[in-house]
Amino acid sequence: GTRDHPPAHVVLRDRLLAAVVACFKRHGAAAIDTPVLELRETLTGKYGEDAKLIYELQDQGGERLALRYDLTVPFARYLAMNKITNMKRYHVAKVYRRDNPATTRGRYREFYQCDFDIAGQFDPMIPDAECLKIVHEILSDLQLGDFLIKVNHRQVLNGVFAVCGIPESKFLTACSTVDKLDKMPWEEVRSEMVGEKGLSPEAADRIGEYVQLHGGLDLIEQLLQDPKLSQNKLAKEGLGDMKLLFEYLTLFGITGKISFDLSLARGLDYYTGVIFEAVLLQQENEHVEEAVSVGSVAGGGRYDGLVGMFDPKGRKVPCVGVSIGIERIFSILEQRVEASGEKVRTTETQVLVATPQKHLLAARLKLISELWDAGIKAEMLYKKDPKLLKQLQYCEDTGIPFVAIVGEQELTEGVIKLRDVARREEVRI
Amino acid sequence: GTRDHPPAHVVLRDRLLAAVVACFKRHGAAAIDTPVLELRETLTGKYGEDAKLIYELQDQGGERLALRYDLTVPFARYLAMNKITNMKRYHVAKVYRRDNPATTRGRYREFYQCDFDIAGQFDPMIPDAECLKIVHEILSDLQLGDFLIKVNHRQVLNGVFAVCGIPESKFLTACSTVDKLDKMPWEEVRSEMVGEKGLSPEAADRIGEYVQLHGGLDLIEQLLQDPKLSQNKLAKEGLGDMKLLFEYLTLFGITGKISFDLSLARGLDYYTGVIFEAVLLQQENEHVEEAVSVGSVAGGGRYDGLVGMFDPKGRKVPCVGVSIGIERIFSILEQRVEASGEKVRTTETQVLVATPQKHLLAARLKLISELWDAGIKAEMLYKKDPKLLKQLQYCEDTGIPFVAIVGEQELTEGVIKLRDVARREEVRI
Repeated sequence: GTRDHPPAHVVLRDRLLAAVVACFKRHGAAAIDTPVLELRETLTGKYGEDAKLIYELQDQGGERLALRYDLTVPFARYLAMNKITNMKRYHVAKVYRRDNPATTRGRYREFYQCDFDIAGQFDPMIPDAECLKIVHEILSDLQLGDFLIKVNHRQVLNGVFAVCGIPESKFLTACSTVDKLDKMPWEEVRSEMVGEKGLSPEAADRIGEYVQLHGGLDLIEQLLQDPKLSQNKLAKEGLGDMKLLFEYLTLFGITGKISFDLSLARGLDYYTGVIFEAVLLQQENEHVEEAVSVGSVAGGGRYDGLVGMFDPKGRKVPCVGVSIGIERIFSILEQRVEASGEKVRTTETQVLVATPQKHLLAARLKLISELWDAGIKAEMLYKKDPKLLKQLQYCEDTGIPFVAIVGEQELTEGVIKLRDVARREEVRI
Repeated sequence: GTRDHPPAHVVLRDRLLAAVVACFKRHGAAAIDTPVLELRETLTGKYGEDAKLIYELQDQGGERLALRYDLTVPFARYLAMNKITNMKRYHVAKVYRRDNPATTRGRYREFYQCDFDIAGQFDPMIPDAECLKIVHEILSDLQLGDFLIKVNHRQVLNGVFAVCGIPESKFLTACSTVDKLDKMPWEEVRSEMVGEKGLSPEAADRIGEYVQLHGGLDLIEQLLQDPKLSQNKLAKEGLGDMKLLFEYLTLFGITGKISFDLSLARGLDYYTGVIFEAVLLQQENEHVEEAVSVGSVAGGGRYDGLVGMFDPKGRKVPCVGVSIGIERIFSILEQRVEASGEKVRTTETQVLVATPQKHLLAARLKLISELWDAGIKAEMLYKKDPKLLKQLQYCEDTGIPFVAIVGEQELTEGVIKLRDVARREEVRI
């Protein structure tokens, strides 16, 4: 369920991470880093049904520890511990889940998350809109093809549950069942609601009518007129937020890729407001024979209560954030690079220091040392007397563009011969 | 024993890591990445007495796992699993040790290691010399003050043990006791040898005479003439290696900071040849009142047997490598920055988008969206109607150099006012 990353992977992944980090920095975020190890109690009660996927450490004396499951809970703990009420931060790091790995879909037990979050008491929906803008920028920058960002609001969902006759104690349960709508058809979700979760068939049917709705500003207006929802305080507040959010998204010019989708629920317990998830849309691709099915590539939302759970006095810090699922995007880029036949260089060496004759190791060592000290990326073969052909072959194999040749003649004249590998041209310096 | 890293830390640490990685790339290394989780059996029997410091994961079903203790053992496993016989790689990542943290000396339970290793069957001492050159380059580049790289050879040490009458079965034990010479005086080490380790007092005294020696090429020549050592095959081979190594180090021009030190032993079991460790030398520093005592900042050596331990057929791949102890270096740099009063910017924002009047949120959102799309790092306050003074104050606090101001007048004229925060000058664009 975990994997090694060979150099060609790392080069490609670093390119991808650099693009994501560039976007986070463009939006003024600062980086923090937290340990992979968290106290077990920090992670308890934050992830709903997924808590069983947390890796725990053996009790070897001392604190009871676990591996972080995401970067959001550690961020909330960090804010509370340091009494920070206002911060825009990003964090790119690995998280751990004892999940059934689906390696073909880019799902592993150790994987990178790239998180951007805005914490602080601000005017409504401005930070939320920025998070969606970030998803839009990153998915556009990476040229991953067409995508859709589904947006919903936990209060709207809760309002829906309320008007459908679900007791408040079952909101979270209903929510995590609705969340399965992206993986199973409504009929199955309905039967889970009625069977396992004990909702009445009538309530389930009423929920079904709402959660199959999706649209834009028009849908928001329609629901604001809905005779039942418009009477519900939660729903009204949530729809008010959504209306304001769409206003800001219109100013950002990105509503074309945004869908208000009532079936989006997000599994985690800690969301309290706007929630969203970006999916890549299936497309014809002339280079790739089998399209990779990758599902969600980014997700996030508002969690206004999480920081308060870590503060002794329960002081809340409202937060909203987004997590980019870099591994899934990586699977696509990797397949694209493979299909294109591009040879990814895994080193950056500029010059190979070579000799055409024997007994010139000392001259090579002296020259390469000078090159390194001058900041030039240089290599030599670790042999006393390598054949010139082998040295040139090494350049061809690894993509080193130049060879610096010191032979007996060059030593006498105090020059070196610089050879352009691709053009097979030489100059004396 | 672990810690959070706030933005100012991360910025400084990233600078440091960038300098180290630049050196590794200059020497033609490719990057790999391996999981934090390793099979427990992979780590068993590699670390001598320190094995008790390995973090183990709870048995939650599936494989029995542990957190990596260093980056060397995972690298050896990687080579064996992928049948790679030839590779120059670097790896910058965190490792985990259940040690007693000494946080003032920059020692934590989670910390970065920066490893560079050369694997492959090559002519003797050429890769070993390059590893020492790398340590020299990095410590010079970082301007950490005076330093010394101690070098020894496991075969020389084993030869010393042999001629002092130690049975081969006690070489590793004797070695890990000698390793404590940097932390305790010879008298204490001697009594541990005689008491706990059961060596004869005479043997311990004879060892004492050797391990207190240090010097350069002169010492190598002297030991090659030593009546007892010169008769010992191990010692002779080791001293031959050392002589060749010093020849190459002379060509690199770095022998001035290198000391052949027979007290250097390195605790880990897997070393088989040249071993080394770099220490910073105490110095007067006008900026820092209390000098941080940091001890070893880099270490490494040759381990020709480790890869074979992971190969089903025991095929060996000779390796030599170096690990840079970035956390200790970080402690020094951090103290230096603090003493200098340098204010480290934690974000890279170039422009704050601001308004002098109310009801201009829409104009700000439109402008900032255009800036982001043009790749400009921009922020705005998340308030509908922030005061101009607050907006300017935010720039002062966070070091944002420019403010783009859109007011009613600017909107009418279709311009923006760009203000240089430090110079308090404005231009209209």
